[in-house]
Amino acid sequence: MEGLGEDSFSAVILAAGDFPNHVLPLRILRTTENLIACDGALEELLEYEIEPTAVVGDGDSLSEELKQRYAHIYHPISEQEFNDLTKATLFARSHLKMDASTHTRPCFCYLGATGKREDHTLGNISLMLYYYRQLGINPVMITDYGYFVPASGTTRFDSFPGQQVSIFNATCKELISNGLKWDIYPFTELWQGILNEALSNEFTIHADGDYLIYRTHKI
Amino acid sequence: MEGLGEDSFSAVILAAGDFPNHVLPLRILRTTENLIACDGALEELLEYEIEPTAVVGDGDSLSEELKQRYAHIYHPISEQEFNDLTKATLFARSHLKMDASTHTRPCFCYLGATGKREDHTLGNISLMLYYYRQLGINPVMITDYGYFVPASGTTRFDSFPGQQVSIFNATCKELISNGLKWDIYPFTELWQGILNEALSNEFTIHADGDYLIYRTHKI
Repeated sequence: MEGLGEDSFSAVILAAGDFPNHVLPLRILRTTENLIACDGALEELLEYEIEPTAVVGDGDSLSEELKQRYAHIYHPISEQEFNDLTKATLFARSHLKMDASTHTRPCFCYLGATGKREDHTLGNISLMLYYYRQLGINPVMITDYGYFVPASGTTRFDSFPGQQVSIFNATCKELISNGLKWDIYPFTELWQGILNEALSNEFTIHADGDYLIYRTHKI
Repeated sequence: MEGLGEDSFSAVILAAGDFPNHVLPLRILRTTENLIACDGALEELLEYEIEPTAVVGDGDSLSEELKQRYAHIYHPISEQEFNDLTKATLFARSHLKMDASTHTRPCFCYLGATGKREDHTLGNISLMLYYYRQLGINPVMITDYGYFVPASGTTRFDSFPGQQVSIFNATCKELISNGLKWDIYPFTELWQGILNEALSNEFTIHADGDYLIYRTHKI
């Protein structure tokens, strides 16, 4: 899987959905250098004895005790247009040292961003496209079951034979696949692109716009 | 909450996502007359000692033993355009006795349709709009955290003060709210309509198209 190693992320952002169980997100949480916790996620993170680099949120979900204990890295942002995931993203983009010399877009990894309330899950998944298009970030959302990446135009994706793949169209009028079990088309509804499958170790999407790709983990 | 009682559904469809924990979906499962189980959900349903009216799916997720034991109510549908949730919906719409004399659209309740793979969750939520618009059904998807209903045009919704509300725009160019904490607008992205809140016991959406409303449970 390309880009899912713990070395590849400029920042890892932990949201307050279901805390990860899968070995891949847990390894990323334990080894990343720049871990931003949305404030609702801090308490459970500490139960795993993992210390964040920064805590971001509006403070609603944080006890007084934790607010004081983490005052040195706590960045309250009380503003209503964006949710905690976006506040953490904007904070990370502004404050973390990133390797500007490479002229590449920073890669952000999102964990704990699904589960619990389904409206938050829906919103967080759609935010991946927003971060990709409007904030100049390459985001990867990793869950216990698979991972989402936004993409644009014609793109090659790593896969393995039998990997379950879903494609969610955002703005494509042209959408064609090579290497998937079922031919895709310019889907107009989210359900139309689910339940596809990779035939071998890579597949290619030919497109004229933006879309989200979901792939399941190997185990 | 309007229409969430166990008496109000022509059919209840149990999908193979996370089995419900909340008292409301569990009560509906235990008391409904027409319970269609997607085949991947049958095994866990039986652990709760609940017997379905029918089992629908492609048979992939069903053991030989269960296939034989439930042969009298098992309806295999091997077709690739639709997922098991839609197969169960089409089956229920064709085979169940519904009270045609009232000339109202049948109400279908969807349980277990979120959790586990997030691509399935996304697809199933978007299918609520498809069933509403293309199949002439009034669907309600109830989860452990809240419930989704599709709606069209100007509609009044029951609520309680402080209820968390999210609005997902499908086709509206006009989208205005009365009775919500934050004014809504014709959202172009899914994340823009989350995190709203009801001020009292009802709110109204003024719209010129279709949209999904998510409301959290009281407990």
